[in-house]
Amino acid sequence: MPSSLDALVRELDLASTGAAMHALATELQPIPRSLTGDGVRATLAAIAERIPLVVHEVPSGTPVLDWTVPREWNLRAAWVKGPDGATVVDAANSPLHVVGYSVPVRARLPLADLQAHLHSLPEHPDWVPYRTSYWRETWGFCLPHHQREALPNGEYEVCVDATLTDGALTYGECFLPGESVREVLISTHVCHPALANDNLSGIALTTFLAERLATVPRHYGYRFLFVPGTIGSITWLARNEDAVARIDHGLVVANVGDPGGFHYKRSRRGDAPIDRAVPRALAGLGESVEVEDFVPFGYDERQYNSPGFDLPVGSLTRTPWSRYPEYHTSADDLTLVRPQSLAGSLRAYLAVAALLEAEARTGAYRRYRNLAPKGEPQLGRRGLYASLGGTTTGRERELALLWVLNQSDGTHDLSSIAERAGMPVAAIAEAAEALVAAGLLAPLN
Amino acid sequence: MPSSLDALVRELDLASTGAAMHALATELQPIPRSLTGDGVRATLAAIAERIPLVVHEVPSGTPVLDWTVPREWNLRAAWVKGPDGATVVDAANSPLHVVGYSVPVRARLPLADLQAHLHSLPEHPDWVPYRTSYWRETWGFCLPHHQREALPNGEYEVCVDATLTDGALTYGECFLPGESVREVLISTHVCHPALANDNLSGIALTTFLAERLATVPRHYGYRFLFVPGTIGSITWLARNEDAVARIDHGLVVANVGDPGGFHYKRSRRGDAPIDRAVPRALAGLGESVEVEDFVPFGYDERQYNSPGFDLPVGSLTRTPWSRYPEYHTSADDLTLVRPQSLAGSLRAYLAVAALLEAEARTGAYRRYRNLAPKGEPQLGRRGLYASLGGTTTGRERELALLWVLNQSDGTHDLSSIAERAGMPVAAIAEAAEALVAAGLLAPLN
Amino acid sequence: MPSSLDALVRELDLASTGAAMHALATELQPIPRSLTGDGVRATLAAIAERIPLVVHEVPSGTPVLDWTVPREWNLRAAWVKGPDGATVVDAANSPLHVVGYSVPVRARLPLADLQAHLHSLPEHPDWVPYRTSYWRETWGFCLPHHQREALPNGEYEVCVDATLTDGALTYGECFLPGESVREVLISTHVCHPALANDNLSGIALTTFLAERLATVPRHYGYRFLFVPGTIGSITWLARNEDAVARIDHGLVVANVGDPGGFHYKRSRRGDAPIDRAVPRALAGLGESVEVEDFVPFGYDERQYNSPGFDLPVGSLTRTPWSRYPEYHTSADDLTLVRPQSLAGSLRAYLAVAALLEAEARTGAYRRYRNLAPKGEPQLGRRGLYASLGGTTTGRERELALLWVLNQSDGTHDLSSIAERAGMPVAAIAEAAEALVAAGLLAPLN
Repeated sequence: MPSSLDALVRELDLASTGAAMHALATELQPIPRSLTGDGVRATLAAIAERIPLVVHEVPSGTPVLDWTVPREWNLRAAWVKGPDGATVVDAANSPLHVVGYSVPVRARLPLADLQAHLHSLPEHPDWVPYRTSYWRETWGFCLPHHQREALPNGEYEVCVDATLTDGALTYGECFLPGESVREVLISTHVCHPALANDNLSGIALTTFLAERLATVPRHYGYRFLFVPGTIGSITWLARNEDAVARIDHGLVVANVGDPGGFHYKRSRRGDAPIDRAVPRALAGLGESVEVEDFVPFGYDERQYNSPGFDLPVGSLTRTPWSRYPEYHTSADDLTLVRPQSLAGSLRAYLAVAALLEAEARTGAYRRYRNLAPKGEPQLGRRGLYASLGGTTTGRERELALLWVLNQSDGTHDLSSIAERAGMPVAAIAEAAEALVAAGLLAPLN
Repeated sequence: MPSSLDALVRELDLASTGAAMHALATELQPIPRSLTGDGVRATLAAIAERIPLVVHEVPSGTPVLDWTVPREWNLRAAWVKGPDGATVVDAANSPLHVVGYSVPVRARLPLADLQAHLHSLPEHPDWVPYRTSYWRETWGFCLPHHQREALPNGEYEVCVDATLTDGALTYGECFLPGESVREVLISTHVCHPALANDNLSGIALTTFLAERLATVPRHYGYRFLFVPGTIGSITWLARNEDAVARIDHGLVVANVGDPGGFHYKRSRRGDAPIDRAVPRALAGLGESVEVEDFVPFGYDERQYNSPGFDLPVGSLTRTPWSRYPEYHTSADDLTLVRPQSLAGSLRAYLAVAALLEAEARTGAYRRYRNLAPKGEPQLGRRGLYASLGGTTTGRERELALLWVLNQSDGTHDLSSIAERAGMPVAAIAEAAEALVAAGLLAPLN
Repeated sequence: MPSSLDALVRELDLASTGAAMHALATELQPIPRSLTGDGVRATLAAIAERIPLVVHEVPSGTPVLDWTVPREWNLRAAWVKGPDGATVVDAANSPLHVVGYSVPVRARLPLADLQAHLHSLPEHPDWVPYRTSYWRETWGFCLPHHQREALPNGEYEVCVDATLTDGALTYGECFLPGESVREVLISTHVCHPALANDNLSGIALTTFLAERLATVPRHYGYRFLFVPGTIGSITWLARNEDAVARIDHGLVVANVGDPGGFHYKRSRRGDAPIDRAVPRALAGLGESVEVEDFVPFGYDERQYNSPGFDLPVGSLTRTPWSRYPEYHTSADDLTLVRPQSLAGSLRAYLAVAALLEAEARTGAYRRYRNLAPKGEPQLGRRGLYASLGGTTTGRERELALLWVLNQSDGTHDLSSIAERAGMPVAAIAEAAEALVAAGLLAPLN
């Protein structure tokens, strides 16, 4: 077992890890997840076998920011029978066949009336679309378009045997404390049934990421959220308004199993440390990444980046949502998600964490004030030229000391000093530590 | 009669409108305008037959900002007779023959002495230059260079039969109120005698623009100024120091009848809404436009853009002043000004107004504050996803709502949100209105 | 003798001046300089024969900023004798043979022990390196590597006959007053023994620059510092903390005699007037210059640009320190320094001063406030259009007046107004002066 985060990155076995991640996705795939209900609970229970997970149940009706926790939905059965009595579609075959949050119904109706409740994809006639109706009371069924077109006229029988009653919204939270009180937020949604890339891949990656990070010393605390989309992150934010001030960096996880290249969506700020760290961490792996500006739609980064929170949370994915044809259809299955892609994504997240840790551990995001700003202080007298240990050689060490002293007027963090100096952050941070020890520098944050 | 500004632009008949504009220029051409006097009054009287014009008379000697309203100048006759008693030049033939504001004189003098009072253009020997001496007391005559060179030696008789006495500075003001108290300023000068492009074209365009805008509903109030150059705008500014705070946009009109392409000179600010609107409005017409930075010379935009006012006033012209050879000479005549060019310029001004109105009417220049800035507010509950009417489809509508909510931290106006979102201002503004109606957004300006 | 700085630049005879500068370097070369001591005194005495120099003696032990003035070092003799009693190295041949600030020693020791005190350059076996140990007490000798390798085993005798006792730090200061109380700082170090490009070339240039500037009228006061490196500039800064507020521009002089092209190292601010002036002045001479950003190492610009002072001091050199192979070795001798290069560097410094003077004399670095900011003030009434003398023609004059009035809202200096106007600074400054005289403009700095 590697003993450091860097070693985790370096020694990650892509083949075996990818297989294990894919196996977890496969295990979770049949569970009928939705925004609330037993499917979410079963999913979180499976995750809790792997990582220390606190499962929160928030009662229906609880006000959360501008929203209210909805009623809980659980499905027993949902099917349509044709004029001949044969079952046409059946949620027992796939949870995609019923529109999520369909209200209970038991009725007979002619095909023409049934059509208003059917959903299919003419452009992909073999695929079943994924549809929900969380906030408007209705019911519906999804089926392949070619099957829909072949439906004979006549009277149909429909059944949605579901409960939509006061219950709870369920979400999972795993917190791995670090040496620092500062935190990194990793958030994924857990509300999509059946679909593999969106979102079993995210659940698997987040679980494995927590499992691996739990094994190594950590500078940051890591907070992993497994939440139903939108209402879940809103609920967490509502219950943790004060805690968000501890978040230094964050990523929303989704679509990390397809064979596409990496895409990074910046935080709303656009220049947060995470926005600079992700491209550098991926470059360090030899991976290319498309970097895109923040837009206020997508996954739960919408909530974390709302102007009242404005958290430094980006999103690292492979092919972004809606840009692959299988998105939100039955074709987003376990064959779309590749073990190698899952493991490569895990390695990317680990590398981002490693970079953030490496920088933060040495105070890269800290600013200082030079306490002897007039002229250079005499470093030799304090043994600073000679006594510094660590990663830099004598000449580099001296330059790092001079850069830190010269730039520490309170406006530059060590990371930006390192960039201006063209030196590694570690060397700059080491110099800052030595200067603090010598009483020449005072930390400002 | 078109019932909207957009229809005015769309349905403008270039041929008939151009002919009518040219006819107005032709009608006004013989009136001997100057900085003050009966020529300005006659010009304004002709304009007042077409639009509701308030004519202001400001007494000579009135302090206006750093200036003083000058004495009024009226010319009865001005001529030069040669040694043989024959008339050599005569202002009865053209007001250009006498230097504007020439002091009265009646004298006999040899050709050598007369030469100091003559003005001609060696590089255009057939043209008469346009000269004035508003602020230094002198007299003079302008004539073709070839005629000047042929003058025989001998004694000449000169006569300037003019009054330069306390009177008034005269300017015209037409105000068309709008739904909003905010205003658009349109300013043209009315002090050049005889010259067609500079400035009969501007007078004609401003008159027709007011006449047309009067017929349609208006968001903005439109204030049209017909003022003698420099001292006229200074006088208006001095008498309306408080009113300028109502001006959201402005344009100075000149040189709009020649066949050249459009030129837009930005306001001093350089990034005022008018500076962004003019190029877009012209692009919407398929017209190209050269955009130039503000310089503190030209026409009355100098005064509106002085640092103490710094109004968002640009200038939209065809060939700018001094860049066509006929500028300020007798060759700037009614053949230089084309009906088609005049009408095209009118259409451009109407299109700018239409764009400003279209954007302002929907609040494009407004800023808002998100009243539920933590997380996204629940739009579905408020029927916002579905209930929005108007120009956008469902998906676009949703994106517009999200962009407005995410960016409405008080620093971005809707126009800049639209730019960041890559969406039409109308869609963004519609979203803002819906959010205001839902109590989710508060206007800040 | 040229009567103006411009004429000094124009009429500088490169051949004769270069020869004279080289002769001064040759004269000073044998003096055994160090951080303190009689070598510095003798050097300053030679300079004082040419320019009015105040020699300061600051006692050992004086606190200066974060430092303390060190003890004074004077060397009487230093040699090594071999096993056969023959002298192997002798500081009488070159001061480079003894490590600067070597503590007194008289000892016999075997070659193996002696080796720890020897310094040579394997990559340049014929050259003697230049080494010092100012802040750590030790002794040592420098010699060619091939000689070191040929040293036979056996017992050696070493002698450093030096005093390292309380005394003084000596530096020279030459101040040439100007019409203005504002100053230009020119600083060079005087602590390197024997070496020609670093630093006899700097001493010679600074001396000649002062000598020449003394002969012409000056806008600025010029302050020339001849200081031992680092501790000298720190000592001067410590004793003149208030005076630095008078410094408008500054340059550190070094490496100005080699045949390489010019390099300019910007001030820490990066956009100080000196940073803009140097490239323009050199371009005016047809000289190319490599411009580099500030880094907090190099010569005494480190101290002047420390964050507590942050002075606008750059450094103009030919080949920068450490980038030529002879740097800090015996090969940096009088053949590396060319008369033509020295004179060309002097001309460059004179041209920079001329440009700064030309701009400053007219107030280019001044900001003003328009006292009649509403509308244009009436220039004609004040005779401003006509009465302006000087370098601009009527039309340009008018434009300059309008630019200054329009931009003088307190945020733009005349130099930036000139840039926006596309006009020479002189024309803009002349307009500002005229406007001040007319009571229309008030200086802000």
